[in-house]
Amino acid sequence: MQVAYTPAEIAAMVGAQRSVGTTAQTIRDIASLTAARAGDLSFLGNAKYRSQVAGSAASVLLLPLDYVGEPRPDQVLLFVENPSVALARVCARIAQALWPKPAPGIHPSAVVAATARIHATAHVGPLCVVEDGVTIGPGSLLQASVFVGRDARIGEGCWVMPGCVIAAGCSLANRVQLQPGVVIGADGFGYEFVKGRHEKIPQIGVVAIEDDVEIGANSTIDRARFSRTVVGEGTKIDNLVQVAHNVVIGKHCILCSQVGISGSTTLEDYVILGGQAGVGGHITLGKGTKAGGRAGIATSTEPGSYLNGNPAIPYMLERRIAVLQQRLPDLFKRVAALEKAPE
Amino acid sequence: MQVAYTPAEIAAMVGAQRSVGTTAQTIRDIASLTAARAGDLSFLGNAKYRSQVAGSAASVLLLPLDYVGEPRPDQVLLFVENPSVALARVCARIAQALWPKPAPGIHPSAVVAATARIHATAHVGPLCVVEDGVTIGPGSLLQASVFVGRDARIGEGCWVMPGCVIAAGCSLANRVQLQPGVVIGADGFGYEFVKGRHEKIPQIGVVAIEDDVEIGANSTIDRARFSRTVVGEGTKIDNLVQVAHNVVIGKHCILCSQVGISGSTTLEDYVILGGQAGVGGHITLGKGTKAGGRAGIATSTEPGSYLNGNPAIPYMLERRIAVLQQRLPDLFKRVAALEKAPE
Amino acid sequence: MQVAYTPAEIAAMVGAQRSVGTTAQTIRDIASLTAARAGDLSFLGNAKYRSQVAGSAASVLLLPLDYVGEPRPDQVLLFVENPSVALARVCARIAQALWPKPAPGIHPSAVVAATARIHATAHVGPLCVVEDGVTIGPGSLLQASVFVGRDARIGEGCWVMPGCVIAAGCSLANRVQLQPGVVIGADGFGYEFVKGRHEKIPQIGVVAIEDDVEIGANSTIDRARFSRTVVGEGTKIDNLVQVAHNVVIGKHCILCSQVGISGSTTLEDYVILGGQAGVGGHITLGKGTKAGGRAGIATSTEPGSYLNGNPAIPYMLERRIAVLQQRLPDLFKRVAALEKAPE
Repeated sequence: MQVAYTPAEIAAMVGAQRSVGTTAQTIRDIASLTAARAGDLSFLGNAKYRSQVAGSAASVLLLPLDYVGEPRPDQVLLFVENPSVALARVCARIAQALWPKPAPGIHPSAVVAATARIHATAHVGPLCVVEDGVTIGPGSLLQASVFVGRDARIGEGCWVMPGCVIAAGCSLANRVQLQPGVVIGADGFGYEFVKGRHEKIPQIGVVAIEDDVEIGANSTIDRARFSRTVVGEGTKIDNLVQVAHNVVIGKHCILCSQVGISGSTTLEDYVILGGQAGVGGHITLGKGTKAGGRAGIATSTEPGSYLNGNPAIPYMLERRIAVLQQRLPDLFKRVAALEKAPE
Repeated sequence: MQVAYTPAEIAAMVGAQRSVGTTAQTIRDIASLTAARAGDLSFLGNAKYRSQVAGSAASVLLLPLDYVGEPRPDQVLLFVENPSVALARVCARIAQALWPKPAPGIHPSAVVAATARIHATAHVGPLCVVEDGVTIGPGSLLQASVFVGRDARIGEGCWVMPGCVIAAGCSLANRVQLQPGVVIGADGFGYEFVKGRHEKIPQIGVVAIEDDVEIGANSTIDRARFSRTVVGEGTKIDNLVQVAHNVVIGKHCILCSQVGISGSTTLEDYVILGGQAGVGGHITLGKGTKAGGRAGIATSTEPGSYLNGNPAIPYMLERRIAVLQQRLPDLFKRVAALEKAPE
Repeated sequence: MQVAYTPAEIAAMVGAQRSVGTTAQTIRDIASLTAARAGDLSFLGNAKYRSQVAGSAASVLLLPLDYVGEPRPDQVLLFVENPSVALARVCARIAQALWPKPAPGIHPSAVVAATARIHATAHVGPLCVVEDGVTIGPGSLLQASVFVGRDARIGEGCWVMPGCVIAAGCSLANRVQLQPGVVIGADGFGYEFVKGRHEKIPQIGVVAIEDDVEIGANSTIDRARFSRTVVGEGTKIDNLVQVAHNVVIGKHCILCSQVGISGSTTLEDYVILGGQAGVGGHITLGKGTKAGGRAGIATSTEPGSYLNGNPAIPYMLERRIAVLQQRLPDLFKRVAALEKAPE
């Protein structure tokens, strides 16, 4: 962060009710109570860390109104209703400073087809390529080196970061955020085995990304064989995730990093998949299904399932079996002893 | 898809032998029998879905000659020799509309070295970088923002999608397709541990991609330490796959998404690896070896092996053990009961 | 490789003490003793392959001084102190030829903000984007189509390959190498669940990459929620690796391909993680912890731990249990037999 705020500026930002102490420092970073050093802002977000406040070297501390204690030398205590909310305000301010909204318009280095319809309030950054028939809605931002293929549609308030590819015919609804390097609409992986060779099955469907979806860096969402691959409203996808063709992901799901979803599978709303989990093809994960990191799910699940392991089984059973597996050497010994026992 | 075909156009495309019914709709999408709505084309590709035809809301249906039934109002039935083949023809036509072949030539925004030899029928799209000594063959297409490093060679009829990197000295043979974001020829991962530090072992080999290979979005194929990393003719690789240095992949293999192959390993022809499978280094997978998703293969395999699990073992054994593992809590109880039994 | 060296040039490069035989070939590639063909250089790097020398078809062979044998027709034997060191010299020469250092300066097609400070000896290649407030140090090289966001800092002698993204505020220290497609500083994956929706937690920290780090193709290192995600000096990261927000990686670690590290986890120095391993969040892996490929580590480890499996357990125990698991069918039978035994 390239920011510098005085304690008074922080106090104003968070609406501090009371301020104690003084410091010559300006705030340039945020850190936890124990990690903070001079020039850092810290906060007491959870009562269980209360004992760490007195020892914190932060220059400014956000504390709840009921906190009792004195500042160290060269330290300011700011008392607020809710330190976590106060911190969020500071973060939002810093976020604005870090990522100022660029002015509307098309950068002269961008290559934009004459038939593309780009809203006057949208921004097409340097070295983007926008092909024929594309539409880009109000306030949307293509940061730099973004490719948008023929007839793709981008709604309002989207933010597409550098190096993303949105292939022909695919769509982002509104307020979608793509982190750098995301690929929307690569061909689905479909072949037919004919006379010793894999013949490609044309992949002519599209990808539809609904409102308020965010997708992490270098993740890939494949176009459908036909019809649509869908990522539902409000779903959040982490980095390096693979979503295969014709997958339909419901609303408000969470897919952690390196998850893979095989073709034609459906995730109902509120599914949560831990990092590196894998889901087989042509199945349905019921609403609210939750799976631990590295789970391997090959069959459909009931709503509310909580799974772990590979193959994934109910979470508590998996945890129990994991413990028993470590006792296998002992079990083999016990069985051998029984076999040797005189009858 | 931004297409619109009249039923008569569809009938002509597929060579329909008979047409029954009428519709005012134009066809804008393709869907399965049950998912189809007005404006969709659907088809009976498999006799087991025959009962779904009568209820389908598709505006046009491709049906086998022996199908008996009447169209719904505002619906056209087209009778053809083979509905799947007919559908493939429609898809191929749509694919042409979706991805029209751009005109030959070099886009003015591309940065192309004077010594690059680019065939007159090739297309170098906007914002590509082509370095010294590169050759690009007849009909090949670099779509946009593609990087081709010094002395790399691209054969005939290749299609390299936006954001791909083909590093110095690497080669694509003919009709190779790279989906967006593929990296061919990053350095192999090789270090020597010297006095507490990892010293880089120069990676001066190349990558050779043979005819008719396709590689999925954001996959990475590393250059060899020396000599060549090879992806054999007709092999298809899905998204986010890692192929390490000096790996040699045979002909007509299938590597599903997120597979990783460690260095110096050989895959003989027709190997198939399920999603997220991992293969150790310096081993050989025999011809036609097949492994399930998430399999972890650490040792060489015989031709025709069928493996699953981690560590991978023969498929049927793994399936059986997976079932027995879930009965471990019971087994522990049974052994405890035996131990308590009076003798 | 597009190189061609005469045997005399190779002899000079490696400081050969003695040369026997002649060949009309020029050296165009390097290969192992058994794989080498005419035009190849090979070497005896390990005494155990001594018997392979006589049968090697290499045109030039690097051999230790004490090797006794005659060249084949059209073959040159070069005797050197240490054939591995000699080979490394040839490789280094080839590396220079393969990747010539481009001239300092900013390519006219790059889009560079007026406020960016780029050292006179640095190179900003074609179609790069460098935003406001960026600093780039002496001798650093942005190869092509690299994005460097506001206020990011790049030290001396770095090499950033095509298509990399270094987002706002992040830093590379000195001699850092990023392979193509690396994303430094995508947002961390943090949401709060509020009234049925996932609300984004602003990610306003940065990423700090220390000296001599190398990161593989398409890997992603997320920015911190606040403060810094750190990759320590001399650490080497392979392709398609995910490092989440607020992770702190120590010095001289090795992360093989497709590893994933969850948020706020610390790796102390000299940690080594095999391919596709996963590490949970908010834990610490002690100095020198080593884990096998595909290990799943959910809890903190002691320094010097050696783990395998998922969930990861001590390596030798895991190997033993893996064997016993394959004997589970037998164990179930044995227990059934005991249960049936007359008492």
